[in-house]
Amino acid sequence: MTLGSDIGGTNTCIGSVDPEGQVIARTSFSTSDYSDSELYADRLAEATKEVMRKTEEAQTDHISWQGLGIGAPNGNFRTGAIEEPANLNFKGHTPLVALLKKRLDLPRIELTNDANAAAIGEKIYGGAKDYQDFIMVTLGTGLGSGVFVNNQLVYGHDGFAGELGHISVIPDGRYCGFGRRGSLENYCSATGIRRTFFEMIAQRGGRTSLDSMRISEITAKHIADAAYDGDQIAIATMDFTGRLLGEALASIALVTSPAAFFLFGGPVNAGEVLLEPLRNTFEEHLIPPFKNKIKIIASTIEMGDAAILGASALILAD
Amino acid sequence: MTLGSDIGGTNTCIGSVDPEGQVIARTSFSTSDYSDSELYADRLAEATKEVMRKTEEAQTDHISWQGLGIGAPNGNFRTGAIEEPANLNFKGHTPLVALLKKRLDLPRIELTNDANAAAIGEKIYGGAKDYQDFIMVTLGTGLGSGVFVNNQLVYGHDGFAGELGHISVIPDGRYCGFGRRGSLENYCSATGIRRTFFEMIAQRGGRTSLDSMRISEITAKHIADAAYDGDQIAIATMDFTGRLLGEALASIALVTSPAAFFLFGGPVNAGEVLLEPLRNTFEEHLIPPFKNKIKIIASTIEMGDAAILGASALILAD
Repeated sequence: MTLGSDIGGTNTCIGSVDPEGQVIARTSFSTSDYSDSELYADRLAEATKEVMRKTEEAQTDHISWQGLGIGAPNGNFRTGAIEEPANLNFKGHTPLVALLKKRLDLPRIELTNDANAAAIGEKIYGGAKDYQDFIMVTLGTGLGSGVFVNNQLVYGHDGFAGELGHISVIPDGRYCGFGRRGSLENYCSATGIRRTFFEMIAQRGGRTSLDSMRISEITAKHIADAAYDGDQIAIATMDFTGRLLGEALASIALVTSPAAFFLFGGPVNAGEVLLEPLRNTFEEHLIPPFKNKIKIIASTIEMGDAAILGASALILAD
Repeated sequence: MTLGSDIGGTNTCIGSVDPEGQVIARTSFSTSDYSDSELYADRLAEATKEVMRKTEEAQTDHISWQGLGIGAPNGNFRTGAIEEPANLNFKGHTPLVALLKKRLDLPRIELTNDANAAAIGEKIYGGAKDYQDFIMVTLGTGLGSGVFVNNQLVYGHDGFAGELGHISVIPDGRYCGFGRRGSLENYCSATGIRRTFFEMIAQRGGRTSLDSMRISEITAKHIADAAYDGDQIAIATMDFTGRLLGEALASIALVTSPAAFFLFGGPVNAGEVLLEPLRNTFEEHLIPPFKNKIKIIASTIEMGDAAILGASALILAD
């Protein structure tokens, strides 16, 4: 039995996972309440113990805990630290694995970034089981990714490989964090898709099926669902997103020559309205030796459990 | 003792290499004379035997030949074939390793693309000895690259990883092959630098120290040398090249998080006129967790021998 924790800017989730990839018990608490990393580690350790207790109560057999895997923004596998996260209240360098080892008696505690955790989850529990070379792309608040080469997740020389969201796609494009402009996640993450939706309202005018919603309520998932249901502004949004992401993935494929890209996140719910322009533009921009070889696949991991499953799978990866 | 062959669009070079990385004997012939792959394989086998004979004549000890490594445009390590090369006269699929195995009695014959061969050469004989994660970038007719991750060259699922020259950098930019536009090699390869030089003459007017040359004679190496000597148009050319390449490498670094980029080719002769804007723009475009960690280094392999050394090193790589 393993434990997985997903640290998001808003909530921290933690759950226990059985060898078949079923989440057995879970809990969550507010991440944003904590600006002190010691107090946060106290709370995470307490929540972990609560999940272990709930799991043990639910099982008659003795449970052997293999460890805790954690996915976090800017989580560094090599150092076990969260480094300069943009959307957490504890800033700078937080040596989370070291802090938790003082508080929990588990054989292994590992940390990586949330998208790397998702890639490992897809490899161990999802559609990437038979792929040695693939790239996982997560469309959330940011655009994250995890790169597998030769059956192994690529960490790179300092543990930060796979930050595809920050690749520049439109010179002098939308304003991003860090004083940069035009990076992929400002267009194709859930947040970027929301920005595109408002751009499409501006460009096209007319009505959308989401008109009765408050601006603050609208998420990429609403836009994806509206596109799926035939809303023209939402369809134009997903079409733009698919084409831009397709072009970017055609460039990214040149680096590691993956056999597939797996896509995960709320926007993927739009289905073919997103995937068809994405696949077409992707193929169009590939150079001949790459054409008609690389699959674009929606993740098979269920949304609600993915982050916990992915993080827990870190304990099972080489 | 190993053998290395570099297949270029114009010439094929072949040489023998001793364990210290010295080229002992060499020969070359015209690639472009051959449009039939069987006849080409005959000629390459004959040239290989000539180099072996010359090497054996020069040595008193018995020579044990470990094999022949070949670097070629669109050379595929996994299949041993040259696939759809843009600048060779024999088109389509040429199973060169199989053709040579019928003609040569050597323990190993391996093929990869020329930039991958250069990366292995840099790793075994050059400045990348102590790097597990690095990317080699070759600025020649095209812009080639070889990507090392975890101490291994990345081939990807079908043997074509590391085609960085085709990454899109300027949407709707310069016309490239394959009906694509704005890819990196049309700006930053030796050929691209030549195009930029003429663009700078157009934009800035005025005279250059290369004015007495015929247009057809001008190469990126002339421009690099003129920049090194203070010619303003050439300096502007190398500055533009450095900035664009720096921005592109900052995106590429996000995929595999290399510890260094090694640069190879005539344009690198420009020295700091190219490298300073390159490094500055690179750092400026990196996201914070990547800043001040990744080196940009000129290759330490000598130009004349690099292709042969790199190809021969393929026999020594894992």
